[in-house]
Amino acid sequence: MHLTEPEVYKLLSRYGIPVPNYALVTGEELPPWNIFPAVVKVVSKEVVHKSNAGGVLFAKDQEELREALSELRKKFPNAEGFIVEEKLEGIEAFVGVKRDLSFLHVVGVGTGGILVELFKDVVFIPIRSTKEEIEEQLKKTKLYRLIKGFRNFKGNKELFLDFLEKLKKLLREHPEIYELDLNPTFVTEKYVIPADGRALLKEPERRRNFKPLPDNLFRPESVAVIGASKNPKKVGYALVRNLERFKGKVFPVNPKYERVLGFKCYPSVKEIPEPVDCALIAVPAEVVPAVLKECGEKGVKLAVVISAGFKEAGREELEREVVEVAKEFGIRVLGPNTLGFMVPPLGLNASFSTTLPPKGEISFLSQSGALITAVVDAAAKENIGFSEVISLGNQSDIELTECFELAVRSSDTKVILSYVEGLELGWELLDFVGRKPAVFIKAGRSEGGKRAAASHTGSLAGNYKVFKDAVECKGGIVVDSLEEAFDACQFLTAYGRLKGRKLLIVTNAGGPGTLSADYATSFGLELVSVDPVLEELSRVLPPNWSRINPVDLIGDATSDRYRAAFEILEKLNWDVCLVIVTPQSMTDVPEISHEVVKLAERSRRAVVACFMGGHSVSKGVEILKREKIPVYPDPYRAVNSIRRGVWSVQSSSEEKRERE
Amino acid sequence: MHLTEPEVYKLLSRYGIPVPNYALVTGEELPPWNIFPAVVKVVSKEVVHKSNAGGVLFAKDQEELREALSELRKKFPNAEGFIVEEKLEGIEAFVGVKRDLSFLHVVGVGTGGILVELFKDVVFIPIRSTKEEIEEQLKKTKLYRLIKGFRNFKGNKELFLDFLEKLKKLLREHPEIYELDLNPTFVTEKYVIPADGRALLKEPERRRNFKPLPDNLFRPESVAVIGASKNPKKVGYALVRNLERFKGKVFPVNPKYERVLGFKCYPSVKEIPEPVDCALIAVPAEVVPAVLKECGEKGVKLAVVISAGFKEAGREELEREVVEVAKEFGIRVLGPNTLGFMVPPLGLNASFSTTLPPKGEISFLSQSGALITAVVDAAAKENIGFSEVISLGNQSDIELTECFELAVRSSDTKVILSYVEGLELGWELLDFVGRKPAVFIKAGRSEGGKRAAASHTGSLAGNYKVFKDAVECKGGIVVDSLEEAFDACQFLTAYGRLKGRKLLIVTNAGGPGTLSADYATSFGLELVSVDPVLEELSRVLPPNWSRINPVDLIGDATSDRYRAAFEILEKLNWDVCLVIVTPQSMTDVPEISHEVVKLAERSRRAVVACFMGGHSVSKGVEILKREKIPVYPDPYRAVNSIRRGVWSVQSSSEEKRERE
Repeated sequence: MHLTEPEVYKLLSRYGIPVPNYALVTGEELPPWNIFPAVVKVVSKEVVHKSNAGGVLFAKDQEELREALSELRKKFPNAEGFIVEEKLEGIEAFVGVKRDLSFLHVVGVGTGGILVELFKDVVFIPIRSTKEEIEEQLKKTKLYRLIKGFRNFKGNKELFLDFLEKLKKLLREHPEIYELDLNPTFVTEKYVIPADGRALLKEPERRRNFKPLPDNLFRPESVAVIGASKNPKKVGYALVRNLERFKGKVFPVNPKYERVLGFKCYPSVKEIPEPVDCALIAVPAEVVPAVLKECGEKGVKLAVVISAGFKEAGREELEREVVEVAKEFGIRVLGPNTLGFMVPPLGLNASFSTTLPPKGEISFLSQSGALITAVVDAAAKENIGFSEVISLGNQSDIELTECFELAVRSSDTKVILSYVEGLELGWELLDFVGRKPAVFIKAGRSEGGKRAAASHTGSLAGNYKVFKDAVECKGGIVVDSLEEAFDACQFLTAYGRLKGRKLLIVTNAGGPGTLSADYATSFGLELVSVDPVLEELSRVLPPNWSRINPVDLIGDATSDRYRAAFEILEKLNWDVCLVIVTPQSMTDVPEISHEVVKLAERSRRAVVACFMGGHSVSKGVEILKREKIPVYPDPYRAVNSIRRGVWSVQSSSEEKRERE
Repeated sequence: MHLTEPEVYKLLSRYGIPVPNYALVTGEELPPWNIFPAVVKVVSKEVVHKSNAGGVLFAKDQEELREALSELRKKFPNAEGFIVEEKLEGIEAFVGVKRDLSFLHVVGVGTGGILVELFKDVVFIPIRSTKEEIEEQLKKTKLYRLIKGFRNFKGNKELFLDFLEKLKKLLREHPEIYELDLNPTFVTEKYVIPADGRALLKEPERRRNFKPLPDNLFRPESVAVIGASKNPKKVGYALVRNLERFKGKVFPVNPKYERVLGFKCYPSVKEIPEPVDCALIAVPAEVVPAVLKECGEKGVKLAVVISAGFKEAGREELEREVVEVAKEFGIRVLGPNTLGFMVPPLGLNASFSTTLPPKGEISFLSQSGALITAVVDAAAKENIGFSEVISLGNQSDIELTECFELAVRSSDTKVILSYVEGLELGWELLDFVGRKPAVFIKAGRSEGGKRAAASHTGSLAGNYKVFKDAVECKGGIVVDSLEEAFDACQFLTAYGRLKGRKLLIVTNAGGPGTLSADYATSFGLELVSVDPVLEELSRVLPPNWSRINPVDLIGDATSDRYRAAFEILEKLNWDVCLVIVTPQSMTDVPEISHEVVKLAERSRRAVVACFMGGHSVSKGVEILKREKIPVYPDPYRAVNSIRRGVWSVQSSSEEKRERE
């Protein structure tokens, strides 16, 4: 169902949103009207693009108004009416609302006008955002610059934010709105007024409910493996073998065996004489509902359905059956089609991944199981630790957002890393996303990617742009690649999110220092001035030191010079210090790394290292990793990780382009 | 000196560039004029921003024309005159020329209008570009979309390119033009006409000459080390030690010693009884001119001045002296303040870097010596090979462009990698840049970076945007980071530049496949369809394979399945194939890597691997590196390297944003 322009204006007025002066013309008579120039438009649910259809005319006096009305009447004999309104001027903003299946109402805001589709200067704001969050998002658009004042343009930022606040309220109270276009909306120093309005209403879609997970759901004391096997080629074997190091109780279940891998084996889960917290299910898909029923009767809390052959194979009915049984008994189901989950601090590998990664403070939630096998393998090599790794599979019951919320509550986890293909509980996610440092990789950005995601999991990939904008608006960090994600996690695990963006760079090589300064400035980080300690530094540094930030200690700098510089530079007001080391002839790399560690300890601020090179720096890198100082092999990766860690600049890639 | 609007119009007309109908008014009389609406503007060298000064009026008939002229006469009593011209309409393009110190005339082209500075939709085109190259550059702008037709906009691409061709000719023949603004220039289907003109003339700056380097300059048969030392802490010791593995002749020079490190030592270069091709000079700065003179008398071809303390330390006079002596004797000088150079295929380390990297086919030209030490150290670990590594130092004589040209000529080098801070011979570089795959990292992008570059080397960093646009226009690849540079070099060394952009992705994991498809599509690569072999593939693949590109072989794929798929997929018309492997339980990584090598051999097309994980994939990675198949640990890096290698998409990051 559509709302026409006057209907939209009425709705807006009810929420205190100003609309143009207008008069509705339904009969033959001319309305009492004396504001000129005026715009005359057709009112009709059938005419969607009024301008394109020739349904918009201008009048600069009564005479022209009469002519315009008569022309429109001829052209649109079946119109419901015509609207006469004042012609507004000012900055043309684009304001368009859409209801996203996952994030519900999002408001697209940006520079309007005829080139809006060409320049795509639009950011999507979820209506769950606060006024402050909205302003941060708006900063990504050129519209914000126009409103703040650019050339002869100037708007009123407060009025515009106020307008969006009212729009938010309207949308919250009208969930039936599916689309709402207020294009253009004119912004001046005195007013923010939409000069058009069109809405499409549609019954809200049914969405799954967010059901909070119990605190210890992924910290079971006992695990049953249903479908345990003695055949090393079977998943049911790998599952039991992977549990050998688990400190809790392990119960293989298979009527064929007495024992599996040294554990006593039971014919059915119900015959296990002790309580079972968690059941890993690896039986043929058809049997899963029956097995799940037994788990329910046994009082299992978490069922991990490893078995595939459900929704992802077109068998949606079978998956629904699983959900039904789970609901009946109050079991939470992970999967089906999941790799399982891992809790390295407990030595628990409840998955068929051969490797258990090191323990740490990252919760890794992944909608791709294969990605987990690769990441876990790389993590062992790079010594990246996890508090938990959860493969979400088909998300028949447990959805990523629910695991996210649990990880927010968990004291084991400092940083949450999510690989997302499709998300149903986006609206709910926004409530949690700012509560802990959170990094997201979102697949399905492009059409090509979307097709691949659709075929790969049972869920349709959502709209990348909406996801990115919505999550960033609430403080989430959306990155492009896995490498970038883990680089960011390294920083976030060490220091969390930083409020300040003042950077100090100390280097023994000019080139990498210059590159780092380039990256920093283009990301919106601020290079702190070293002028206050210029004299003091000059006393301990060679005469040809850089005398600016980046502080170039010159190629023959040893750990003594680094330390001397650090001790002076500590007095400056920086938020994060990047220490760059290249292996030159005098460079005592391990000793320098100890100085870096001490700087971090003494200054109680964020210190990040970039050790460039190979074998010559490997020992220093090892020391830093052990002491949990983030260390990167390339200045770009170092500065990019700092950017991701700093609240106000993490998503400012637009600025980067601008500064070029 | 300025040119006024009518003077610019006259100049344009001489090159066949259409200008508006106009009449110049100098006295009191009204010109014979009957084209309305008309624009009336002041003509005055003093009024730079005519609109801002109120010097532009509009007239829709004779009456208004008279009024406008009289108003302008009152306002600008000292004006040289007034110009009446037809009011043009169409797409407003920005066209502005500047003369760059390095690249000479570059034409900035993009979307015009009042928001040009906000949207910065401008690309700089060096006038050395061909028509085809210009069109490729224009594709990066929104203006190109407008000209091709967008909404109710449409221009004439051929006319616009023709206009730029004429402008190029004009600029070539008028080197005195320092700035030329033709803003706006109106573009319609019928014409391209500048509606304004202003020029600033300035005597061309004196530039250094490009002097081609002799073929074997960096392949000496004998090397003298002037300032050789027995003290292991001195550079003069390191230089001799590094030459121990050199197969040519080595002559230490120092009056203090009889022998250094087993080599006979001479009191002066002139007393060496044999010819000396190359001299490494490591004596105090003040002594360098005298030593250089002796080298000249000896007939040395290349002097490598390792010594610092010249321009970079404010002693420009001393550096000029070096250049004078070199000119007098026809010696080419590398440095001063250089690390030296290395030629790994000859085992020649004519530098004070402790490590000589593996031999290979990359020529690495660096304006930062410290960067070389880091890169060379990392290269040894990652097994990246070089044909030569040259540290440019202060570039008193030999400039990066000259080394670049030599590397283009050299049959040892397949790919040229340059780290650039400042470049004087930009114009000349453009002549060579497309002749061999060339990757550039440019420092000094941001203001912060620029300050650092200025303090670090003796040269001022040029304008990043001009550099990037100019070099990309001629086919160079400009990357952001060192890691990206070496990733690109790996691809380019194996396959050079590709004309086609059709990509096939084969994977055993959905997630990374989806991400790769995302990256590919957003970079402008094309995912080839697998429909023609759908049936055939289905016969050898499990039923749940993806049935699209990315071809997901499913997690339990072994090398047999990879091979079977490859054999069928070879029939398709792809330009590059990305093979993704994640280590799952059945994955036989080394065997799969052999299949990848065979695919590359059989298909004679570009094959790139992404092996994700740690120890589980390291053996496969080793095999691939040995066989020179590019292999990356992260899908982003793999696809980005492919992007860099493909001609038509390498710089399409704008498109990426757009597709989001």
